[in-house]
Amino acid sequence: MTERVVLAYSGGLDTSVAIGWIGEATGAEVIAVAVDVGQGGEDLETIRQRALDCGAVEAYVADARDEFAAEYCMPALQANALYMDAYPVVSALSRPVIVKHLVAAAKRFGASTVAHGCTGKGNDQVRFEVGIQTLGPELKCIAPVRDLALTRDKAIGYAEKHDLPIVTTKKNPFSIDQNVWGRAVETGFLEDIWNAPTKDVYDYTDDPTFPPPADEVVISFKGGIPVAIDGQPVTPLQAIQEMNRRAGAQGIGRIDIVEDRLVGIKSREVYEAPGAMALIAAHRELENVTIEREQARFKRTVNQRWTELVYDGQWFSPLKQSLDAFIQDTQQHVDGDIRMTLHAGQATVTGRRSNTSLYDFNLATYDEGDAFDQSQARGFIELFGMSSKVAAARDQRLAAEGK
Amino acid sequence: MTERVVLAYSGGLDTSVAIGWIGEATGAEVIAVAVDVGQGGEDLETIRQRALDCGAVEAYVADARDEFAAEYCMPALQANALYMDAYPVVSALSRPVIVKHLVAAAKRFGASTVAHGCTGKGNDQVRFEVGIQTLGPELKCIAPVRDLALTRDKAIGYAEKHDLPIVTTKKNPFSIDQNVWGRAVETGFLEDIWNAPTKDVYDYTDDPTFPPPADEVVISFKGGIPVAIDGQPVTPLQAIQEMNRRAGAQGIGRIDIVEDRLVGIKSREVYEAPGAMALIAAHRELENVTIEREQARFKRTVNQRWTELVYDGQWFSPLKQSLDAFIQDTQQHVDGDIRMTLHAGQATVTGRRSNTSLYDFNLATYDEGDAFDQSQARGFIELFGMSSKVAAARDQRLAAEGK
Amino acid sequence: MTERVVLAYSGGLDTSVAIGWIGEATGAEVIAVAVDVGQGGEDLETIRQRALDCGAVEAYVADARDEFAAEYCMPALQANALYMDAYPVVSALSRPVIVKHLVAAAKRFGASTVAHGCTGKGNDQVRFEVGIQTLGPELKCIAPVRDLALTRDKAIGYAEKHDLPIVTTKKNPFSIDQNVWGRAVETGFLEDIWNAPTKDVYDYTDDPTFPPPADEVVISFKGGIPVAIDGQPVTPLQAIQEMNRRAGAQGIGRIDIVEDRLVGIKSREVYEAPGAMALIAAHRELENVTIEREQARFKRTVNQRWTELVYDGQWFSPLKQSLDAFIQDTQQHVDGDIRMTLHAGQATVTGRRSNTSLYDFNLATYDEGDAFDQSQARGFIELFGMSSKVAAARDQRLAAEGK
Amino acid sequence: MTERVVLAYSGGLDTSVAIGWIGEATGAEVIAVAVDVGQGGEDLETIRQRALDCGAVEAYVADARDEFAAEYCMPALQANALYMDAYPVVSALSRPVIVKHLVAAAKRFGASTVAHGCTGKGNDQVRFEVGIQTLGPELKCIAPVRDLALTRDKAIGYAEKHDLPIVTTKKNPFSIDQNVWGRAVETGFLEDIWNAPTKDVYDYTDDPTFPPPADEVVISFKGGIPVAIDGQPVTPLQAIQEMNRRAGAQGIGRIDIVEDRLVGIKSREVYEAPGAMALIAAHRELENVTIEREQARFKRTVNQRWTELVYDGQWFSPLKQSLDAFIQDTQQHVDGDIRMTLHAGQATVTGRRSNTSLYDFNLATYDEGDAFDQSQARGFIELFGMSSKVAAARDQRLAAEGK
Repeated sequence: MTERVVLAYSGGLDTSVAIGWIGEATGAEVIAVAVDVGQGGEDLETIRQRALDCGAVEAYVADARDEFAAEYCMPALQANALYMDAYPVVSALSRPVIVKHLVAAAKRFGASTVAHGCTGKGNDQVRFEVGIQTLGPELKCIAPVRDLALTRDKAIGYAEKHDLPIVTTKKNPFSIDQNVWGRAVETGFLEDIWNAPTKDVYDYTDDPTFPPPADEVVISFKGGIPVAIDGQPVTPLQAIQEMNRRAGAQGIGRIDIVEDRLVGIKSREVYEAPGAMALIAAHRELENVTIEREQARFKRTVNQRWTELVYDGQWFSPLKQSLDAFIQDTQQHVDGDIRMTLHAGQATVTGRRSNTSLYDFNLATYDEGDAFDQSQARGFIELFGMSSKVAAARDQRLAAEGK
Repeated sequence: MTERVVLAYSGGLDTSVAIGWIGEATGAEVIAVAVDVGQGGEDLETIRQRALDCGAVEAYVADARDEFAAEYCMPALQANALYMDAYPVVSALSRPVIVKHLVAAAKRFGASTVAHGCTGKGNDQVRFEVGIQTLGPELKCIAPVRDLALTRDKAIGYAEKHDLPIVTTKKNPFSIDQNVWGRAVETGFLEDIWNAPTKDVYDYTDDPTFPPPADEVVISFKGGIPVAIDGQPVTPLQAIQEMNRRAGAQGIGRIDIVEDRLVGIKSREVYEAPGAMALIAAHRELENVTIEREQARFKRTVNQRWTELVYDGQWFSPLKQSLDAFIQDTQQHVDGDIRMTLHAGQATVTGRRSNTSLYDFNLATYDEGDAFDQSQARGFIELFGMSSKVAAARDQRLAAEGK
Repeated sequence: MTERVVLAYSGGLDTSVAIGWIGEATGAEVIAVAVDVGQGGEDLETIRQRALDCGAVEAYVADARDEFAAEYCMPALQANALYMDAYPVVSALSRPVIVKHLVAAAKRFGASTVAHGCTGKGNDQVRFEVGIQTLGPELKCIAPVRDLALTRDKAIGYAEKHDLPIVTTKKNPFSIDQNVWGRAVETGFLEDIWNAPTKDVYDYTDDPTFPPPADEVVISFKGGIPVAIDGQPVTPLQAIQEMNRRAGAQGIGRIDIVEDRLVGIKSREVYEAPGAMALIAAHRELENVTIEREQARFKRTVNQRWTELVYDGQWFSPLKQSLDAFIQDTQQHVDGDIRMTLHAGQATVTGRRSNTSLYDFNLATYDEGDAFDQSQARGFIELFGMSSKVAAARDQRLAAEGK
Repeated sequence: MTERVVLAYSGGLDTSVAIGWIGEATGAEVIAVAVDVGQGGEDLETIRQRALDCGAVEAYVADARDEFAAEYCMPALQANALYMDAYPVVSALSRPVIVKHLVAAAKRFGASTVAHGCTGKGNDQVRFEVGIQTLGPELKCIAPVRDLALTRDKAIGYAEKHDLPIVTTKKNPFSIDQNVWGRAVETGFLEDIWNAPTKDVYDYTDDPTFPPPADEVVISFKGGIPVAIDGQPVTPLQAIQEMNRRAGAQGIGRIDIVEDRLVGIKSREVYEAPGAMALIAAHRELENVTIEREQARFKRTVNQRWTELVYDGQWFSPLKQSLDAFIQDTQQHVDGDIRMTLHAGQATVTGRRSNTSLYDFNLATYDEGDAFDQSQARGFIELFGMSSKVAAARDQRLAAEGK
């Protein structure tokens, strides 16, 4: 029986060419798999037909937008996931949901191998392959661009020679990846890290320098998940889309950093994530109101490790699952409303209200009704500072002894 | 011999009244100590004379602005110190430098006791008293407002009765603390956490809604410390002041959060820290360029603990000193220039260049000259993902066995 | 209606006297509550009758041994809980279960106050009172020894004057606390930290210097919990009791440390925990076999924080609960057998077998059948070491430039 | 000019054969480098001559025992370095000092390549190659056993054919690595993890089952380093050697674990480290006496990360250096004497005394002279427990509301 290869298919030049290229290089039949994670662009049926026209024996397309929003973006929101305190792990989130569909397709169509279009120096190859190893330990992985030396020029030549139904323009100056949680842009003149991004880099956000009037929004959360915007119930996908639209119009969520890749190099990355960044700002402040201090302090450590793991392609790892259990436990009372002003690149929280609040006006107020017994403070301070005081007394004694 | 009390003196109503009040309550002589940490307002000589007019036997004033900027604000910048990822520990930083001068004054003037004007429900009482316990373990602490029941109304009555040279207006609606690193505002209508701040809350920043044209600045660092702005050499104090002015004009550095106090309650706080926030944004990105990945990842944990300790009044603690040793070691190559655009509430990094950069164009580029050997990736991925893969295979085997 | 006070009652002199003492000092009726956590000694009915004879209006006794073993000791085992890497939090574990019964009794008998017999410088007062605040926020706490100045001498005088049915010998040289998880001894000549413990300090363990012949045991775990010993099914309580007996006979589990108390002082403590220490040694090694590397590495951080929280009296805190969720997730496959040799103070693991093992002979072996592809190592090493290599090259360049 | 290869030379079969093998495979001249890290066995001059006899063009030998003890083992002691809480990173410590000599030799003799004898599935290949990449970024690495397929059988055949001056017995059942800090044994029947180690596995330790009489020792530390034993001044090397002898005679320091290797697999390892384990036990307890609580708590996190980095071959990494700065700062007052009893496999601390102690008898005692003000405890407990109490009240309110 002929070997079969499942190919992660985008509809673009590289992966269209890869259909035939893999067939020629390996003798296998190719099944194209396209997954909609909200990247926009062509509709799935068009992509599906193109795959078949390019020689795929089967083409499997999936609208995974709701699944991606609910099961991948929402956990990232609950973890306030910002790699290096800045990047909302946009591409890193979409890889595991795509992997899930690739492995499912491999099982359904009897494929022994999964192929992806990543190069050999990025993070995504790791995310794809570690995910595939984990969900389908029996599957092999190949990466035509990396392993079969499928360069851009070779791809254009192949497409023209075989008259493939795909536009073979010169290379876009940028490498772009996008989904509903955000958009990533790299390479080109951005590789000189002293260069500022130009306006044409951006697509999800308008220029914050000339914003429309300020936009006030109230986001309602239940269990750390947005459930309504301005009082209108929303699904996770709708919440992200609505905030992409409104925060994007204000130029919110542009990110420009030098980033530490898993493969050991630093790279310069530009991102846009208007909805994600606005939702995270709201979620963080609601956590400030509803999560106890020590739980919140430790959760920062958990958030950081969760984010590193997801960035590093460990979505399906045992540690990631255990961190999820921790985070879920913290979210049970993250309920309430956050009012924000969206304007000129900034999402500013201006109010919070919650039935599960730990803010106690009567303890906090300096006015009448104060329920806080200030006389307790002396004893607290004395014992809280005791161990440092004893150490300081020791050090001063030693200094006096000339030691 | 008469007991002597050193009083942390601000020149305001409460501490002016406290001079006489402490004398009456304890029979001690009062030495007033005023420390300039860049809070603005009256000059030190005016404050000094008022203390004497209010009955102090001695008045000690110190211009600690350079000391505060260099020895307290700069370590906070190197730690990217943001409590709860938001608050640049403005008040928490000034307490230890004030404590240092209080203890020095107590030794110079033969005082056995130090007094401060804090209430019993805030963080500052802890910061003062733990600091004093540590630097002067033999000193006693008193807090007239907390321990001697010196309320605002009593203070006004006392001042009027004794004809003290101080204005006794009705209470300002806010409680304010400021220094060169920032400004803190609390109480009043802000205690209702659904209320947005009004314009009169702010003083260090202009309204970001109607900003002047964008302002481009290049900040040069050496060892993690700003040493020049737009090519002009600056001291730490000058760097903060210059950035306060320029970032403040753009409305940068407004913060509004519900915060976890050390004494166990949540409180609502509004801060302004234009210079601090702009400098931290620049410093973080320069660290991204010049600090190795694993060092940077662990430094986040150290930064968080450093910030918690400083917030919690543990500036002089042994752990704080050991964390300083870690941080100093990380800063030795944080050298270079960061270009930022200041506009409408945002400080946006647009370029970075450094002789100590770890960004390697030849490793990062996707263009010609690529020095990265992509063939190494397969082996890396296989071993990097091995432990998760083995665990996943185990779990799938158990699932198949129905366990 | 007369106020009622629930008293944590041990049956000993101090708390027997406290029954009348509290009544006299506060006018309240006293309900005595005694909880059996495996401390041994008198039976509950004898203790119950003594409480009534000493003047209690009600006496509530509970055999909480199974509850304590299953719900408090087993989570500690799963967390490998060793405070300062040494102390299996013996006393700290029993306080929350006692608190639970105290609060339940307060509700049942309509009491407004809970009393305990702790002094003002130990950890247990914090554990009792923070627990009571948490489970019964409406309850008041009193501590007669600390708050009502009930000294040992006063207690003896009171008991003799009122002819209480209790022996009033001179003070035992040690302060002792014990339960099924272990035994704590402090004060007396041990307060000189250069003194070695004498033989009379110990009760749960025989002298390891002259042990009986070595004892081999196989402990079977399911989900991180011991379920059989040498093939015989056991409950958690039975597992601890059996291992106390067998490991105790070999002198295993003696601990002697200078410990950091929550109240800021260092104290010298001697513990015995033969069963706990043997079970933890077995559980740790079974985790080594069944838990993935990164999960295991992070779990050490979680274990440490869990242990600090429990030591610090935060059993019922939100963070403790979230850490429990993490730990539970890690334990689902901690199944299998550990063979140990118990001898002369040491519990030594000599074998492990598990259906959920992640040890893969075919990957590990250097013999035939090796399934590990060694050619992958080069790529792994190159990328794993890349970021350090780039940093080293930078540092060497700077050194060569004389910087 | 002929290429030159520096070979890490042990004097054994594999590396003796590798001298000729590398020459034949690459055409390069081979320089043999042997480093004495206390592994015992033949003297350096014998090894040096054998290398020349086997065809090396140069042979460089170094007695690095003092350097290894002082600069590698002592930092590990200060970090209480125990990988997985068990293994004192014996082999991991020796690799960087060997690398340092290899790179120095490569520079001295003009070599472009460094060779080592590791296989492709262990940790040591990573430690060698990452170390070499870091200290000599311009050097290439080769591993004949891994990269040139030099198997044991081929080595024996080659040695016999070329009449090399080396014994070609059948393979020892174990793979052994040893130095003054300890000894590592793996493979053979130990690969079945249910098998117990047999007596012939051990060499540094006598059987603890039949020990000589107990041995009491007093170890004196200065700055966390042992400086005297029973009052006799010692160098770091002497301290380790003396404790190896005395603790080894008692069977102390045998370790048997399933370990997580860096390359992603679990392996079964047996170690002996009598001196290291006894010194670490003493050092830990002296830290308990002399280091402040919060510093000690955070140091555990630093110790763990330090140990993981060293295990993972990152000795020369930037993070390792910054962690060293932290640890050094904590050690400045780790001075004093620890008295231990060595007997039957256990090193038991029985006393500690220190001029830099933070143990304060007057604060700790329950007898007369107590300097601890117990009345402070109430206020401490109230505020310490406040945030959990507020959270519990919230949760109970929500439960009552049926949420």
